[in-house]
This record gives sequence, structure tokens and C-alpha cells, in this order.
Amino acid sequence: MRTLYHYWLCPFSRKIRLMLHEKKLEFQPVVERIWEHRPQFVSMNPEGLTPVFVEDDGKVIANGYPIAEYLEEIYYDPPLLGDTSTQRAETRRLVAWFDEKFNMEVTHNLVFEKTMKRKMGLGGPDSGVIRAGQTNIHDHLAYIGWLVDQRNWLSGHHFSLADITAAAHLSCIDYLDNVPWDKHPEAKEWYTRMKSRPSFRAILQDTVPGITPAAHYMDLDF
Amino acid sequence: MRTLYHYWLCPFSRKIRLMLHEKKLEFQPVVERIWEHRPQFVSMNPEGLTPVFVEDDGKVIANGYPIAEYLEEIYYDPPLLGDTSTQRAETRRLVAWFDEKFNMEVTHNLVFEKTMKRKMGLGGPDSGVIRAGQTNIHDHLAYIGWLVDQRNWLSGHHFSLADITAAAHLSCIDYLDNVPWDKHPEAKEWYTRMKSRPSFRAILQDTVPGITPAAHYMDLDF
Repeated sequence: MRTLYHYWLCPFSRKIRLMLHEKKLEFQPVVERIWEHRPQFVSMNPEGLTPVFVEDDGKVIANGYPIAEYLEEIYYDPPLLGDTSTQRAETRRLVAWFDEKFNMEVTHNLVFEKTMKRKMGLGGPDSGVIRAGQTNIHDHLAYIGWLVDQRNWLSGHHFSLADITAAAHLSCIDYLDNVPWDKHPEAKEWYTRMKSRPSFRAILQDTVPGITPAAHYMDLDF
Repeated sequence: MRTLYHYWLCPFSRKIRLMLHEKKLEFQPVVERIWEHRPQFVSMNPEGLTPVFVEDDGKVIANGYPIAEYLEEIYYDPPLLGDTSTQRAETRRLVAWFDEKFNMEVTHNLVFEKTMKRKMGLGGPDSGVIRAGQTNIHDHLAYIGWLVDQRNWLSGHHFSLADITAAAHLSCIDYLDNVPWDKHPEAKEWYTRMKSRPSFRAILQDTVPGITPAAHYMDLDF
């Protein structure tokens, strides 16, 4: 059975969980507490981070970028990057936008700072960092709103890994009730469509020990 | 003519420059000073960062990850990711290692801090950040040494985008004379091999206005 080592509020893990569900690939999710530095886990990924994917044949693939590209290569249908090189370039640009820029400016400031930082032995949350994340998120939600207004889905007419990646990050932040949806109705409409996809079900059922999700976290009509 | 908008000490731009040379694709390099926020450039890449690649037919591809994947898709020969899905996953794992982890722990602390930060209006260099980069680089050079001892090239028996990516970052740091080569002979031997590749020539001839390269920067025997 395919196995995915993940952590609940790791956006990179959520991206792969969503991708596996969209491609209808069965897998066993295993929660990895990376701060325990489990030798068996570190031997699979020297970087010590989730996600790590283990194929049926035992092949180990570490890091969200190689896993996503691998899944698209081997299990092409339905395509999640796009069916032309131009479309794939645009999807990948937005995947990078959310995994790099959004992560650095928003997800890390809010999710890592509030949940993982203490577990990693890096002290308590810094209110200045959290405030920066709360400020930065507005520009990104406005960008999502602009994109879906032009294109229906983030990278074009079709649902893609860009939508999955953005929603993976936002769902972690939404769990903590830190997404100002009321100020961004276009982004909210897009996220409502994301939440109603069957692939999103498992994500919405996550319960992180010691952290209660926002009251509306599971609601499809929020 | 294909065009690459790049900046001399941008490791992501250097990766694409090296990749284009390895694939023997002619292109016109254009230096982009991203801190000028040129509207025409921002319209090509809303993130406002280098590299941006413009194809012969006018197609625009922004960000190092989509450009690299596009070049490998369209101009496959010579393959730089690998010829099996397992090999490609390992190459991409190491590309992510250097573009994400190494960049965050080393390149950003040394190159951005010393050169770009002031241009971006973010104040002068922080000596604590620079010291952290100088400390962190040792573990990475040791990892490179370990990999090439096991495998000849970083991701396996063949030269790949992993070597290109690692060398793109290290060459920026070497320009500033901040790589402790004397403590890491295995990594130095590998970098000597990289420097002697024809694709590296243009990189070694870079001269950044106002920043003199290290005395040994261009030497193949350093």
C-alpha cells in the first residue's frame, strides 16, 4: 500500500494528500512528528521534513515538489499541471507562488509561528511575525480573487495543482481561523468550490491534538 | 531570439543560464535590476523576480522552477533531470534542497544580505545573519562531499540539474569569496569539475558593477 508521511498542518503534505485524492490513488496517511527526528524517517528524507511518499514497490520520494511531479508523470490522468507546455508553465508559476512566496510571507508567519515553532524548540510565537502574516495575506487573497475573476480557476479554465497548492496553504491558516474571508468574497467563493470537492473531505476532518479548528472550518457553507 | 532576464548574483538565474548552455540553446541575456520595478518586467512576472525566460515565439515563462521544467520538456536532449522517474525524483529532491534549504540557510544570508538588501531599500547588512550563513555553509559542503563520494555527481552517476543548481548557488557565494573550500576538499574537487565545463564560462566572466570578484573566482585551478 502506498504510504504518505505527513503532518496535519503542513501545507506541502496537504498538497500531496489532495493530489492523491484527485488522482484517485489509494494511500495510507501516517502522521510524522518531525521534531522527534525519528532516525527511520530521516533516513528516508535527510532534510527531515514532510511530506515523504513511499510507493507500492518501496520507492521513496521526498519533498513536495518531486512527489507532485512524480505523481503527474506516472499517474497522468486527470492531468493537474495542464495539457500544454504553456499551461504547465503557468500552473508551475502559481505553485511556486504559493509554496515559496505565500509560504514565506503568510503560512510560515501564521501556522509555523503559532503551532510548530515551540515543538521545534525555537521558543514561543513572535507577535510581530504573526502581525506581518495577517497583513500580508490580504494582497494574496486579492490576487486569488483577481485570478479567478479572469479565469475561473487559478491557472486557467481548468482546475489544477495551482488551486490545490493555494488551498493547501489556506486550509492550514483557516484551521487557525486566520483567513479574513469576509474582506475577500471572490477568494471565498473559489475556496467554497475547493471545499466542496471530494478530495477535500479528509483535510476538513483533520483534528490536530491540542488545537481546536475554527468553528466554520468544516462547513461547506461558511 | 530567446531572451533571459537575469541578475548576475541571482542563483536561480544562474541555474537557467547554465541549463541553457548545457542544452546548447542560444539566448540573449538581459540584466534586470529588479529593485527598479520596471512595469514591463512586472507585467511579465507579477512576482517581480528574476529569472524570466521569453521564447522565440514570444511565450513568457517566469520563475526558475517552471523554466527548468519547460526546458527539460521541450528540449529534452541532453536530459538534465534523469532518464527514469526514480532518478528524476532524486534530482528534483536535490534541486529543492539547494533552491530552498541552502538558499534560506546560506545564499540568502550571504549574497542577498551583502549585495541586494540595500538596493531593495531594506537597510544595510546584518552581521548576525552573515555569520549564520558562514556557519551553515559547512554542513552543506560536507553533504556535497558525501554525495560525490558515493555517486560521482550529486544525484547519481550522471551530471544533472542538481549539480547545476548547487553550483549556481555556490558560484554566487564564491564571487564574494565566502566559500571555505580549504576545509572541504571533496566539494572543491566537484566544483573544479563544474567550473571546467564550457557552460560555466559565461558565469565566470560575470562582473557585477561595484563588486570585485574573489581573486580565484575565475581560476579553474584554485
